[in-house]
Amino acid sequence: MSFMLQSEIEITTKGRGTYELTARVAEAVRSARVSTGLCHVFTTHTSASLMICENADPDVRRDLETFMADLAPDGDPRFVHTAEGPDDMPAHVRSVLTTSDLTIPIKNGELALGTWQGVFFCEFDGPRTRKVYVTTLD
Amino acid sequence: MSFMLQSEIEITTKGRGTYELTARVAEAVRSARVSTGLCHVFTTHTSASLMICENADPDVRRDLETFMADLAPDGDPRFVHTAEGPDDMPAHVRSVLTTSDLTIPIKNGELALGTWQGVFFCEFDGPRTRKVYVTTLD
Amino acid sequence: MSFMLQSEIEITTKGRGTYELTARVAEAVRSARVSTGLCHVFTTHTSASLMICENADPDVRRDLETFMADLAPDGDPRFVHTAEGPDDMPAHVRSVLTTSDLTIPIKNGELALGTWQGVFFCEFDGPRTRKVYVTTLD
Repeated sequence: MSFMLQSEIEITTKGRGTYELTARVAEAVRSARVSTGLCHVFTTHTSASLMICENADPDVRRDLETFMADLAPDGDPRFVHTAEGPDDMPAHVRSVLTTSDLTIPIKNGELALGTWQGVFFCEFDGPRTRKVYVTTLD
Repeated sequence: MSFMLQSEIEITTKGRGTYELTARVAEAVRSARVSTGLCHVFTTHTSASLMICENADPDVRRDLETFMADLAPDGDPRFVHTAEGPDDMPAHVRSVLTTSDLTIPIKNGELALGTWQGVFFCEFDGPRTRKVYVTTLD
Repeated sequence: MSFMLQSEIEITTKGRGTYELTARVAEAVRSARVSTGLCHVFTTHTSASLMICENADPDVRRDLETFMADLAPDGDPRFVHTAEGPDDMPAHVRSVLTTSDLTIPIKNGELALGTWQGVFFCEFDGPRTRKVYVTTLD
């Protein structure tokens, strides 16, 4: 019989940057006592996102931020949507290029992430209070 | 007991651009009478895609289209796959950079989207008749 | 009654490039005997990824690789994370820009992919032995 459990995580960001969520998502999985299943993670914001990324060297996330900042720079003169500031449209672009939703397998009661994979919240605005839904199913 | 319901949405696009699907996906969720669950959205095309994006100011999607058009321009001389026209390979690139599948939580019988989030179909070719699957589960 | 089945696919890559997984994922779906449902595919690596892409002309994937190689080039002087070689950080960027997880509808016992859609494993490092989880549910 299938069992679906949904919880919410609140994240207080200190500004732009990446915030590791792996432990909090793993905790939701353990609470759900799912042996084999799936874990869905979703963020409800359009100037923030989720990603799975290398979790060992913080420089990896810094380099990713540099990459995104060059690809969709603040104040890019191509952008028409500037009413919410020069960093708003770049935030939307970076959010679309990463993702709002992730689904991760659950195996033997744990997230089946690879050794170097972490789940990260990407804040492209902030500081802000942000919401993430975690839904587990088996 | 789990219940899974699958339906199809047909979209007639007038050409390149973004088309909001939020109301049609929300309607499928309501028809499924799922209280807590997940809603999966999938498009079956390689020159189109899905994205979750800011839904208030249409300039946001226009700016995203500008961004994509500059990143993977029509007629890009780097591309070898030109048999289907100068806009075909850029369409495939833009499709890969966005997504073909989205999963959104369902809470209290409704899509748990954020205030500013909308579900959009991205047409990188067209005008065309396009297909989107919506699968709900609880 | 819901039924969830999880299996693992091992992929031996010969180096950078894309490797079609469609037949192996379709085989997992058939083994699971799911009529209407979802198929989740996940890779556990941060220098590799998954994507849904045009499967007819191999030039499409070659052009995508060219695009990614220009967007996040090996040895990019902006990158600080170089301890694992000049190709490691670009691999992480390309992995984030594509995806680690895919969910595909199952209809009439088969993957409901479009005519031109294939499921691909993207190796940004290698040669390597790689792991992909396939989870089906109905």
